[in-house]
Amino acid sequence: MQVPGLDETHDPKLESWVASANAPGCSFPIQNLPFGVAETGEGAARHIVVAIGDQALDLTACVDLGVFDDLMGGAARVVLTAGTLNGLMARPPADWQALRLWLSQALRKGSALQGQLEACLLPQDGLRMVVPAKIGDYTDFYCSVEHATNIGKIFRPDNPLFPNFKSLPIGYHGRASSIVVSGTDVHRPSGQLRQQDGVVFAPCRMLDFELELGAFIGGPTNKGGPMPLAAARERLFGFCLVNDWSARDIQAWEYQPLGPFLAKSFATSISPWVVTRAALAPFQVPARAREAGDPALLDYLADSDDAAAGALDIRLQVGLRGKAMEAGEGAPHVIAETNSAGLYWTFAQMVTHHMSNGCPLVAGDMIASGTISGEAEGSQGSMMELTRRGAEPLALGEGETRGFLHDYDEVVFAGQCERDGFRSIGFGECRGMVLPAVQE
Amino acid sequence: MQVPGLDETHDPKLESWVASANAPGCSFPIQNLPFGVAETGEGAARHIVVAIGDQALDLTACVDLGVFDDLMGGAARVVLTAGTLNGLMARPPADWQALRLWLSQALRKGSALQGQLEACLLPQDGLRMVVPAKIGDYTDFYCSVEHATNIGKIFRPDNPLFPNFKSLPIGYHGRASSIVVSGTDVHRPSGQLRQQDGVVFAPCRMLDFELELGAFIGGPTNKGGPMPLAAARERLFGFCLVNDWSARDIQAWEYQPLGPFLAKSFATSISPWVVTRAALAPFQVPARAREAGDPALLDYLADSDDAAAGALDIRLQVGLRGKAMEAGEGAPHVIAETNSAGLYWTFAQMVTHHMSNGCPLVAGDMIASGTISGEAEGSQGSMMELTRRGAEPLALGEGETRGFLHDYDEVVFAGQCERDGFRSIGFGECRGMVLPAVQE
Repeated sequence: MQVPGLDETHDPKLESWVASANAPGCSFPIQNLPFGVAETGEGAARHIVVAIGDQALDLTACVDLGVFDDLMGGAARVVLTAGTLNGLMARPPADWQALRLWLSQALRKGSALQGQLEACLLPQDGLRMVVPAKIGDYTDFYCSVEHATNIGKIFRPDNPLFPNFKSLPIGYHGRASSIVVSGTDVHRPSGQLRQQDGVVFAPCRMLDFELELGAFIGGPTNKGGPMPLAAARERLFGFCLVNDWSARDIQAWEYQPLGPFLAKSFATSISPWVVTRAALAPFQVPARAREAGDPALLDYLADSDDAAAGALDIRLQVGLRGKAMEAGEGAPHVIAETNSAGLYWTFAQMVTHHMSNGCPLVAGDMIASGTISGEAEGSQGSMMELTRRGAEPLALGEGETRGFLHDYDEVVFAGQCERDGFRSIGFGECRGMVLPAVQE
Repeated sequence: MQVPGLDETHDPKLESWVASANAPGCSFPIQNLPFGVAETGEGAARHIVVAIGDQALDLTACVDLGVFDDLMGGAARVVLTAGTLNGLMARPPADWQALRLWLSQALRKGSALQGQLEACLLPQDGLRMVVPAKIGDYTDFYCSVEHATNIGKIFRPDNPLFPNFKSLPIGYHGRASSIVVSGTDVHRPSGQLRQQDGVVFAPCRMLDFELELGAFIGGPTNKGGPMPLAAARERLFGFCLVNDWSARDIQAWEYQPLGPFLAKSFATSISPWVVTRAALAPFQVPARAREAGDPALLDYLADSDDAAAGALDIRLQVGLRGKAMEAGEGAPHVIAETNSAGLYWTFAQMVTHHMSNGCPLVAGDMIASGTISGEAEGSQGSMMELTRRGAEPLALGEGETRGFLHDYDEVVFAGQCERDGFRSIGFGECRGMVLPAVQE
């Protein structure tokens, strides 16, 4: 099932002729090779790029060098000049692997292609990254049992977790049109708020972030009925960081009985680099063990590969920087740290459940994990949890406190994978600043 | 705000040189002129077509005649050869009106273009219609107070209607990828079902339809904050019939707390013809009056135009034909009749509410009304309501009864507008047959 040579792309001894990629702590060493799309050159054409150190290799420009003529049976020329990752994502996983292997070899120290490829390097600093795929549908799951329990406790202290939570990965459809790339400012939404003296239409007063992990779907669209978990897993092209901004007061009033709607659909921010499933292979860990008393897994949600290595060990961090703090400069104040390994459901389980009714999943679709929270103090992925719905504001230093987000607050997510014997790889950042509500 | 001459397109005395369009009871007289997309000719190229009588005028083929060279400042040539309606929908409403006026004049008896256009007529009978637009996002609302009350009574007899129902149009995001065109077979979905002795994964046993009206969004994408109701109304390009197939047993187990997901995302069928807002102008009626005790409308949901003529008087009908009935031939058994004029919220209110948080609505997006039910016996738009959750099965004749849908049942929706002094116009049909569940 795997292209020969793919394992060596994880070798920690590999170094790139792009010197910055070899620096300790670099998010994008040659073992990572995440894909993105940047507007570049005259007319802001959209090019497919790969992050390497502090540079990006312009794959669309590389096509003209003829280096991809033999890759993917000739299809590489087409998919790498399409301006989005959808075409690449739609190829079979063997083609993704072949491209990864080519990149790993071409960017290695000593590669005969160095001279040619140097002309296609762009500094990441100057790139305008965009949402990397045309996202047809966006599905948001709810896979952290700690998050579901924390939120449930606020609204239903006696019965925080719904009985279906441990039987299926709960999910709902999100809004694809409001997905924006990291760095895009986000206006505080207005909406209906229920107050003691009635309902008003006003700017949201309980604006929150949600720390999530997203996955892009790849491969051919499924047709018909259920698909085994092992095949569903092959639909996972790669991952990014997701901030599913949430207006808690709008949500509280609108969400019954059909779920969140305008409380979420004003903006969802994603990090620009898609870290492939192949790059994350060394950081797969056993799926969270089910506890005594949990219902047995139904067959379609179970296989031994998933139990053995279905979870992703990714350290995730939330930073917050207020307008008054250091004049908007400097590192944000870290307010939460957690890890995606603790999710109750794996991404393969999300995918197979999603397709279990025959729902077509199309290359470029995005699914997200739902807010990722841990048990420890400070490991929760939303202000709602960190501050107990604003009742216990966070101290940010320099006298600043936050119950929910203020205008001009900047929220910055980061993700990093580490394991002994492997190079660390990173996701880069997912950042967004809150701007005041738009006035009519 | 309106192109001169548009009103005359409603004149009941207008007749077409396409004789079948002038027959009494024809759904597609020259006063209608709905748009669709058909696969036609060699290579099944997608052409934009307009229904006229039992024929369709192939607008994509007409482009080669040069007849559109001056329309929309030259843009008509581009949008009418795009293979989807998205480009046309994205034009400003004045361009939609100009095209309607051109079509009305060109298809009238005595038109000098008759000789040229006859070569571009295709019999509807032989057309393979497709989903007429690339639907980026699909939103389903919940606008019938009768439906919400009926469903609520089944689950919460003491408190059937949530307190937010009369304050805002409740909606949720649906699944765009599972929207199919009328005539597409629909497999019974499988999913998790909670039974007395535990949860199983099995084919749905409570398969239902939902009778809805859909609207396609047009015009330029909104940016930023709220938009006045009058401007939001201009985003409505046209309407179609929608069957939002629903698996009630899957829904009952999965829907808390985030709303319907796999219970709906296996298929949503739409009728192929988009009846424009302009064509429906004569059938606009006053919006449903709010009752004593209802909360006051918030400003952003209110204007006098909407109160005076915000509702659509469309007679809707549900037919059901079982496999054993007449060997699948003949007219389906009519099991429900209702009217969209009774919806509690208007489409303009749905749109302005949807954009009130800044959510981008893009040309080609679809919104739907939610199940349309009336108060009278037999006016409910779902089996769930018509049979009280299967407890009171319907008699279909010839000894057949139905609690929920059986395999090989065919569900057929029809819609028709009638008003004294105007030609009746129709929506055509939205039909789909239930096939057995796909086995793994």
